[in-house]
Amino acid sequence: MSEKIYTLTATCPDKSGLISSITNCIAANGGNIINLAQHTAVDIDTFFCRIQFSTFSTQEDGKQMFSPASFTADFAEIAGKYNINWKIYDKSVKQRMAVLVSKTSHCLYEVLLKHGDGQLDCEIPVIISNHPDLCSIATEFHIPFYQIDTLKGKEACEKDIQALLEEYKIDVLCMARYMQILTPEFTRRWENKVINIHHGFLPAFKGAKPYDQAWRKGVKMIGATAHFANEDLDQGPIIFQDVVRVKDTNSIREFVEIGKDVERRVLVEGLKKYFNHNVFICNGRTFVIEQ
Amino acid sequence: MSEKIYTLTATCPDKSGLISSITNCIAANGGNIINLAQHTAVDIDTFFCRIQFSTFSTQEDGKQMFSPASFTADFAEIAGKYNINWKIYDKSVKQRMAVLVSKTSHCLYEVLLKHGDGQLDCEIPVIISNHPDLCSIATEFHIPFYQIDTLKGKEACEKDIQALLEEYKIDVLCMARYMQILTPEFTRRWENKVINIHHGFLPAFKGAKPYDQAWRKGVKMIGATAHFANEDLDQGPIIFQDVVRVKDTNSIREFVEIGKDVERRVLVEGLKKYFNHNVFICNGRTFVIEQ
Amino acid sequence: MSEKIYTLTATCPDKSGLISSITNCIAANGGNIINLAQHTAVDIDTFFCRIQFSTFSTQEDGKQMFSPASFTADFAEIAGKYNINWKIYDKSVKQRMAVLVSKTSHCLYEVLLKHGDGQLDCEIPVIISNHPDLCSIATEFHIPFYQIDTLKGKEACEKDIQALLEEYKIDVLCMARYMQILTPEFTRRWENKVINIHHGFLPAFKGAKPYDQAWRKGVKMIGATAHFANEDLDQGPIIFQDVVRVKDTNSIREFVEIGKDVERRVLVEGLKKYFNHNVFICNGRTFVIEQ
Amino acid sequence: MSEKIYTLTATCPDKSGLISSITNCIAANGGNIINLAQHTAVDIDTFFCRIQFSTFSTQEDGKQMFSPASFTADFAEIAGKYNINWKIYDKSVKQRMAVLVSKTSHCLYEVLLKHGDGQLDCEIPVIISNHPDLCSIATEFHIPFYQIDTLKGKEACEKDIQALLEEYKIDVLCMARYMQILTPEFTRRWENKVINIHHGFLPAFKGAKPYDQAWRKGVKMIGATAHFANEDLDQGPIIFQDVVRVKDTNSIREFVEIGKDVERRVLVEGLKKYFNHNVFICNGRTFVIEQ
Repeated sequence: MSEKIYTLTATCPDKSGLISSITNCIAANGGNIINLAQHTAVDIDTFFCRIQFSTFSTQEDGKQMFSPASFTADFAEIAGKYNINWKIYDKSVKQRMAVLVSKTSHCLYEVLLKHGDGQLDCEIPVIISNHPDLCSIATEFHIPFYQIDTLKGKEACEKDIQALLEEYKIDVLCMARYMQILTPEFTRRWENKVINIHHGFLPAFKGAKPYDQAWRKGVKMIGATAHFANEDLDQGPIIFQDVVRVKDTNSIREFVEIGKDVERRVLVEGLKKYFNHNVFICNGRTFVIEQ
Repeated sequence: MSEKIYTLTATCPDKSGLISSITNCIAANGGNIINLAQHTAVDIDTFFCRIQFSTFSTQEDGKQMFSPASFTADFAEIAGKYNINWKIYDKSVKQRMAVLVSKTSHCLYEVLLKHGDGQLDCEIPVIISNHPDLCSIATEFHIPFYQIDTLKGKEACEKDIQALLEEYKIDVLCMARYMQILTPEFTRRWENKVINIHHGFLPAFKGAKPYDQAWRKGVKMIGATAHFANEDLDQGPIIFQDVVRVKDTNSIREFVEIGKDVERRVLVEGLKKYFNHNVFICNGRTFVIEQ
Repeated sequence: MSEKIYTLTATCPDKSGLISSITNCIAANGGNIINLAQHTAVDIDTFFCRIQFSTFSTQEDGKQMFSPASFTADFAEIAGKYNINWKIYDKSVKQRMAVLVSKTSHCLYEVLLKHGDGQLDCEIPVIISNHPDLCSIATEFHIPFYQIDTLKGKEACEKDIQALLEEYKIDVLCMARYMQILTPEFTRRWENKVINIHHGFLPAFKGAKPYDQAWRKGVKMIGATAHFANEDLDQGPIIFQDVVRVKDTNSIREFVEIGKDVERRVLVEGLKKYFNHNVFICNGRTFVIEQ
Repeated sequence: MSEKIYTLTATCPDKSGLISSITNCIAANGGNIINLAQHTAVDIDTFFCRIQFSTFSTQEDGKQMFSPASFTADFAEIAGKYNINWKIYDKSVKQRMAVLVSKTSHCLYEVLLKHGDGQLDCEIPVIISNHPDLCSIATEFHIPFYQIDTLKGKEACEKDIQALLEEYKIDVLCMARYMQILTPEFTRRWENKVINIHHGFLPAFKGAKPYDQAWRKGVKMIGATAHFANEDLDQGPIIFQDVVRVKDTNSIREFVEIGKDVERRVLVEGLKKYFNHNVFICNGRTFVIEQ
C-alpha cells in the first residue's frame, strides 16, 4: 500500500492567514488533512498547530504523488515568511526509546504492557538499569537489558549509557523511576529528549521522598508529573500530571502504594502525547495541543 | 470599532480537501481565522468543524471588508458540493434564553451568577415558573418573573409559556430543575432548543427520584446530565455529564445535597458549550467539538 | 510471635448500646482494638461495624490470652440479643481465590502484579480459562493454568471448573474479563463469592458491547463496575465503580482502550475491599464500611 | 424535646483499651453512640476519635438523664490517665462565624447559599470587608455588613475588626477571598480559628497571583486549598483541597475563571468539616477524621 501518514507540527508568533497558508501548502502538494489541532496562546501571542495528513507515495488513480522533498521546499518558504518553527514526522518511521530503571517495577511494567498493546507509537530496543532487579521483566518481554556498574562513578556510568544509546540508535529516553540524577552535560546533550516521572505533583514536593513530605504537610491529594528532565532537577517542562485523593487515615506507606498507580498512568500518558507529537515546548513550558 | 467575530459550524460526510476549501473561502472573503477545531468521527465517517474568525466590517487600513452576503453566497457553493450542514453566528448578536424553574433554587442561582460573571454568552430576558418560590431571586437579578397557573392544565400552561417565549423573542430554553414534563408538541416545536438538567448519570436512572434509585442500587458515584429535552423524556442528546464519588455512609438525603453541586455545575457547563457553538447533533447524539 | 490480628464484621437492626456491648466483649476477652469503622444507615435503620483487634495467643507478660472459642461463645450471646449477623476472620488465614479469564490480559496482569506487590490479602492458587491465550502469563507468575474445553457445553465446563475449585480449596472467584455467562446453578452455589468486572458504569449499559452502546449514546464519561455476579447478569451488588472522562473525538476503539485502564483499576480496588472485609451486603446492595 | 446530641473529639498517644474506656464512659453516663470514627496514625503513633452520641436531658421513660457536669468529671479522669486532648460540643449551641471579604463575590455567595441551605452548622452574624462592593449581597441575605477603613493602617483596621468580633461574639473567622495579610498578633490571637481559601494547590504556588504562576509553569491541573491561616502565610494546616484539570489551550484569564469554581467548593467543604468537628490538628498538620 502506497498511502503514507505525516504529522506536521508548527509554532510561531501569531499572524493573520497562518492556517490558510499552511493548509494550502499541504493541499497543493497532494496531502489530505485527516485532522488539525490549532491554538493561539493569547497570553504570549503564539500560534501552535499540529496537522496529520495522508499522502500517496506513488502515482495512482489519477491521485497526486506526494514528494517529501517538494513539500519541504514549499513549506520552508512559508516558514521563512512567518518565522515558523516546524517539524514533519513520517508515521511509518518509529522513534526508538530506551528505558532507564532502578529497582521498582510498576512503571517499567506499565510501559512494556502498553507498548505491547500498541498504545505507544515507538520501538523499545533496550532497557538500562543501575540494579539487576528488573532483568527478568526485560527477559519476559524479550528486550536486551544492561546493568550499569555504578561503582565506577557517575561520569563513567553516563559514558556507558551514552555508548548504549548510540549502539541502539536511541532517539528518546524514558526514566521509569531511575533513581539517579543525571549530570548537566548529559541532560544538555539530550535536552527535551529525556522524559522523567516524578512521584509528586510538581512544582510542590521537588526532590527526595515526596510522599513523606506530602504526608507531613497533610495534603489531601497526591500526584505525579511526567516532565522533561533538565539541568535543574524536577524543573523541566511538564508534559502530564494527575492526582488522586488520599485520606488522612492513610499512612506514608499507603501514600507510596497509592502513588504508584498515579505514577505509571501519568508516565504512559505523557509518553503517548510525546510520540503522538502533541507536545510543543515554548517559553520554558509545554503546550500540549490535541483535539 | 468595526471588527467583528463570526463562528462557523460545519458538518458533512468526510471527504478529501474539506479544510482547505473551507479555510480558503474564509480567507478569500477577508476573514482571519482565530481558532479552528476539527474532527472526523471515523465510526460514522463524518466531518465536524468549528471555526472562529475575525473580520472588518468597514474598509480601513487597506484591509478587506467582510460582507456576510458575499461569504454566504460563496460558502453555499462549497456546502452544496460537499453536502455540508452549516451555520454562521455573529458574536455581537446574543441568543436569548428563557429559564424555566419550579421550587429549587440552586440551578437558577448558578445560571444567574455565571451569567452575571460573563461566562454565558447569551441574554436572559425572562424566568418562568410553575411556583412562586423563586420570584425573589429573579427580582434580585432584575429579571421579569412569570408564574404559570398549573391548575389550567398542561396544554393551557404551555400555551401561556409559548406566548411568553414569543413576546420575549426567545431562542432557547433552559430547564433549571423545572419539574414538569413537556408535551411532545412543545418539544417538537423547540427541538434541540430546550436544555434540561437531569439529576442522574444518564442513561442510568431515568425518570423520577434518581437519587433514591441510585442509593437503593448502592452505586458508588452519582452524576448529572445536561441534555436536549426531546419527546422521549430523559433520552435526548447528552451535552455534558459529570459525576462525584459518594460514600456508602451517605444517606439518600445526602445524595440529594451532594447531587445539587454536580447538577448546577453540569448545567452551566452544558450551556457554555451550547452558546459557544461547540455542540453538533448527529446520529441522535451530540459531538462537542472544542479545542 | 504469638500476636494475632482478627477482623470482626457485624450488622444488625440499629439499637442503643451496640458499640459498647461489642467493644466490651472484645476488651473482656483480651482483644485490643486497632481500628473500628461503624455506620448506621438511617434510611434502613441498620447498623454496620468492622473492627480489627490484636490478641495474644499465649499467656505472656501478664497479658490476657485470647481464646477464639471463648470469644465466640461470649459474642454469640450479644449477637442473639441484638440479632447480629457477624463473622470473624483470622488475618493469618488467607482466603484462596481462583481467577477466571478468557483472552484479554489487562485485568489478569493487574491482579497478579498487585498480588505480587502485597496489596491483595489472598492466595491465588489457580487460573482457569476457556482459551489458551493467557497461559504464558500464568507461567510467568508460577500459577497453574487450566484450559476448559468449551466444546463440551456450558454444563460440563462448569462441572470441570467446580472440580478444580474443590481441588484447589477455593473460597472466592474473580472473573477477570471471563467472557462467559455462568449458569444460575453455579452463581447460586457461589453466591456473593464471585466478583466480576463489568466494563460499563452499571446500571447503565448492561449486557454486551457496553462501550459501543456508550459511544452511540454519546456519553461523556465511561466507567467500570466491580460487582458480585448473581443470577440476574450484571445486576449483582456493586462493590466499586469508577469513571473516566472521554472526548467526543474518541472513537469506539479508543473507548475500549481507555476503558481497560478503568476496568483493571476498579477490579483490583473491589478485590482489596473484599479481602479487607469492608464489604457488607444488605437489602440487595453493598455497604462498604471503611475508615 | 429533651433529647440532645453531643460530639466528643479526643486525641492522644495510642494505647490499648482507649475505645473501650471512652465508649464505656459515654454509656455509663446514659449516652447512646450514634456514630464513631476512629483512626490511629501509625506514623506518629497517635489516636484520634470523634464520637456523636444522643442523651436525654430529663428523666423520662425510665431513661437515664445525662448530666454534662458528671460526664465531664468522669471523662476528665480517663483523659488524665491516657493524656487525652479532648473537647465536647453541644449540637444545639451553634458556633458564630464572621466572614471577611474584599471585592470578589463567588466565595461569599457560596458560603451564604450553602448556609441558607442548612449545610453549614453555624451562625453568620456579620460580614466585614475592606471594600464596599459586596454590601448589596450582605443586604440580600439580611446580614450586617461593615466596611473597614484601610487608610487607617493595618493595625487600626485589625483593632476595628477585633472590636466587631467581640461585639458579635464571634468564634471563628472565614476569609472568603479577603485580600489582606493579617498581622502575626492577630493570627496568634485567633490561632486555628481563621479559615482561609488559597487559590492554589498548596504547597505549590504560595503567595500572590498563583494562577499566573501556574500558567507560566504549564501545570496541567489547578487547585484550591482551605487551610488555617497562621503567621507564616499560606503555610497553615490544610483542611481540604481539590483540583481541576485545565487544558494548555486555556489562558490565564480562563485559569482564574475555572479556579473560582474550585475555590468556592473547597472553602465550603472545609467549613463543613470544621463545623462538623472532623478536623484535628496534630504535628502541624490536620487529620480530618470522618466516616
